[in-house]
Amino acid sequence: MSTNLRWENSLVSRLARESKNQHKSVLLWFTGLSGAGKSTLAHAVEKELFVLGCNTFVFDGDNVRYGLCSDLGFTEKDRTENIRRVGEMAKLFVEAGVIALTAFISPYCTDRERVRQLMPEGDFVEIYCNCSIEECERRDVKGLYKKARQGLIKNFTGISAPYEPPMRPELEINTGALPLEECVGQVIRYLVEQHYVAMKQ
Amino acid sequence: MSTNLRWENSLVSRLARESKNQHKSVLLWFTGLSGAGKSTLAHAVEKELFVLGCNTFVFDGDNVRYGLCSDLGFTEKDRTENIRRVGEMAKLFVEAGVIALTAFISPYCTDRERVRQLMPEGDFVEIYCNCSIEECERRDVKGLYKKARQGLIKNFTGISAPYEPPMRPELEINTGALPLEECVGQVIRYLVEQHYVAMKQ
Repeated sequence: MSTNLRWENSLVSRLARESKNQHKSVLLWFTGLSGAGKSTLAHAVEKELFVLGCNTFVFDGDNVRYGLCSDLGFTEKDRTENIRRVGEMAKLFVEAGVIALTAFISPYCTDRERVRQLMPEGDFVEIYCNCSIEECERRDVKGLYKKARQGLIKNFTGISAPYEPPMRPELEINTGALPLEECVGQVIRYLVEQHYVAMKQ
Repeated sequence: MSTNLRWENSLVSRLARESKNQHKSVLLWFTGLSGAGKSTLAHAVEKELFVLGCNTFVFDGDNVRYGLCSDLGFTEKDRTENIRRVGEMAKLFVEAGVIALTAFISPYCTDRERVRQLMPEGDFVEIYCNCSIEECERRDVKGLYKKARQGLIKNFTGISAPYEPPMRPELEINTGALPLEECVGQVIRYLVEQHYVAMKQ
């Protein structure tokens, strides 16, 4: 990259945005196997936060991979670049005062850690959607596990590519066993307890 | 890209976000030569919009090129990819209810047109910051023209790389001659007249 650049400071600070919004901005990073319920949980949490008056947005493998990352595939290198771009984009959403929710398998610890390091402490909340591979394969909502077992999909996480669970996630949600409402409640409670958002009286 | 994807619909619609925010979301695309005042104008417009209660965010060559596009240089191919990524990212900001302001030289008509085509009609407002190359070079705030003339910077727009002015921009602002406040006023008036935002009584 050229070094003929300088950082332009915004005339509107993040603090001013958060003050206007009446909530902190943060990146909620949902990680887990395909079918673990990341996207479903992220969208359900977003809905709850929106009802509470928060500015929110969900990124998932689908809306990002059709757009920003449409040039990338599913090799390890491309997955890493995918997560890097999502991290950089989400960082700007957080600076814009938005609670950004990302739902990506994001199988590699180092990729997730790199996103965490992009941001100030407390801005990155890693949420491990824990659901066993057996349960994910049993659900197989999109029929992907079947295709992966047949060898029709390469580099499929849990089958032909690794998944590295978070070592110290801020939250671990048992999406394999708990009903959705309970999972949503766990995330919202965390955000309230940590003073990212306030419950309206 | 894999075809094993499906678009996940958000539970929170753009319309719901716009209704909550009490303004429409839109992408304001500032284009013009280096030194034409794109970033200065975008930040000043943002400040005005923020005072009006709008959700806003400015992307410029600097904050994006340090992050999302840190892997890209200034060749024609890299510039095109830079603008493509910015367009895709800005599209998601608009879906999130934000008035996104981008300040990039974005010298190629086809690159800007491609961003326009990503979005529904009315979502892309092209703002041509018209300032002559002579005036930009006279200002030379960052000392880049001098370096470019010395051959120290390659592919420098206006010197050693082309700039294609917009054919039919929604707005053309004479940033080469008008004071900043007048330029800001022209953009705000357009947004009010086109019912993107409302002036508070």
